[in-house]
Amino acid sequence: MTEPTSTNEIKLAELVAQGMLAQDAMSRSLGISIVEVRPGYARLKMTVRADMSNSHSICHGGAIFTLADSAFAFACNSYNRSTVASGGSIDFVSPARIGDELTAEATERALPGRLGLYDVAVTDQSGRPIAFFRGRSYRVTGETVAGAGNPQ
Amino acid sequence: MTEPTSTNEIKLAELVAQGMLAQDAMSRSLGISIVEVRPGYARLKMTVRADMSNSHSICHGGAIFTLADSAFAFACNSYNRSTVASGGSIDFVSPARIGDELTAEATERALPGRLGLYDVAVTDQSGRPIAFFRGRSYRVTGETVAGAGNPQ
Amino acid sequence: MTEPTSTNEIKLAELVAQGMLAQDAMSRSLGISIVEVRPGYARLKMTVRADMSNSHSICHGGAIFTLADSAFAFACNSYNRSTVASGGSIDFVSPARIGDELTAEATERALPGRLGLYDVAVTDQSGRPIAFFRGRSYRVTGETVAGAGNPQ
Amino acid sequence: MTEPTSTNEIKLAELVAQGMLAQDAMSRSLGISIVEVRPGYARLKMTVRADMSNSHSICHGGAIFTLADSAFAFACNSYNRSTVASGGSIDFVSPARIGDELTAEATERALPGRLGLYDVAVTDQSGRPIAFFRGRSYRVTGETVAGAGNPQ
Repeated sequence: MTEPTSTNEIKLAELVAQGMLAQDAMSRSLGISIVEVRPGYARLKMTVRADMSNSHSICHGGAIFTLADSAFAFACNSYNRSTVASGGSIDFVSPARIGDELTAEATERALPGRLGLYDVAVTDQSGRPIAFFRGRSYRVTGETVAGAGNPQ
Repeated sequence: MTEPTSTNEIKLAELVAQGMLAQDAMSRSLGISIVEVRPGYARLKMTVRADMSNSHSICHGGAIFTLADSAFAFACNSYNRSTVASGGSIDFVSPARIGDELTAEATERALPGRLGLYDVAVTDQSGRPIAFFRGRSYRVTGETVAGAGNPQ
Repeated sequence: MTEPTSTNEIKLAELVAQGMLAQDAMSRSLGISIVEVRPGYARLKMTVRADMSNSHSICHGGAIFTLADSAFAFACNSYNRSTVASGGSIDFVSPARIGDELTAEATERALPGRLGLYDVAVTDQSGRPIAFFRGRSYRVTGETVAGAGNPQ
Repeated sequence: MTEPTSTNEIKLAELVAQGMLAQDAMSRSLGISIVEVRPGYARLKMTVRADMSNSHSICHGGAIFTLADSAFAFACNSYNRSTVASGGSIDFVSPARIGDELTAEATERALPGRLGLYDVAVTDQSGRPIAFFRGRSYRVTGETVAGAGNPQ
């Protein structure tokens, strides 16, 4: 049913993600980097630093949320159609510790009209689940990265 | 129905919040400060800095979530009973811009057993709503700030 | 800042809610009735019947959700602009028992563009909180109840 | 890492689900039936009836939530350790129509301590996604179905 993803679509998704990260001061200040992007999908990485800990000496939920939220943003903008987050929910299932290398993997669940639903799983270097995020997006007008192109 | 809050309970809540913030590297790195705390309640402030922006040049949802999550954490630990976040959801209703001074006000909704439910409203300097957060907490054993005391 | 609500706006909200309930077989089968509606607001009632209980012999979460969801639907359609639910979350804080008379009070939190955010508090006959619901709406084209009018 | 599921564990999950459904008046009044259960998993079915429609003449969100919530309840009680729902969120991605045969498939995501996180996907007879539900559970003391046994 689903058309195979073309090389051009993957290249566009990569171009958009790189353009977004270059402008995303918050993600860069947390050391977030791109592992893989394709249409409707993004995988990002972040190493938990001492300045991301909370009063329990574990990674602050806000840092984990930021990683998941950025993966969600890169996934839902992967078609280069400007899309914003209307919200998200996160469930923390295991603490992340300083030095842990976290991966956030965002997957598209549905695109009803201008809305979108994405799931993001955050795991540590051993594959252990740290958090489950679900993001809700809203497509606005325009391109995410001007001039990068559009698959249709 | 509700007992009036005693001065001792407010002092304990303040002591706990100050102790938590002193150990909370993430909140301090974002310049988050305490405005007011009392039992089941916390109000925090954060000025949106350039290094908190996302690729749309507005405040990253992760920075707003972190502010709300910290207000939630201070509110649900205000009795000095160690309590962790099991999760939260956030809805973004208006963008926050660089230079905006955000306030997060956390209010307790319910404390069924070891669980807790808190609402946090994030507003800007003009009182405009920026985001609505709802946090879910889980009380573990022990004190949040060892030796600070316990109202009962 | 907010314009006072006119009598016409309240009448329109009532007309729409009555028109919706007349067509809403699920709400009627649960015995849900309208207590009060006005722009951005709805209050509904439902008595917990034996056929709404779950295996723990308390009111099924689905019945409580249905009551809250209908209050949300009536509130977000109160301007007679056709609006659908894109989703909602609910937190159960106290069990409801057979015979309890539940009230769901829906309040508008924000209307960013075509999206909307509504909070619904469900309480029992003694005012005790049973559940907190947060609904997300999306405005489509057309009127909710054709010909009922539109305030602007 | 995960032990293979034993026949006894599956039989216990089935016994518990059948015992729960026998007592669950709300699920039975909506015609919900069990397709498959095993540890941490449940799949239920429901045909959308005319008395489940809302004012838009599509299936009421409350009926879809009830189906998902029951699948979640059967999955999180599948070990016969009494577990209640503390809450859940649902995102509706496509309308369900009268006559549609819906399936809700509940899968365990995490069991941190007494808490649990479950995802439920609701699809129609053609496999089209209708809604995505995420449930949060809390384990209390005792067995779900007294005397049915316990795997450990």
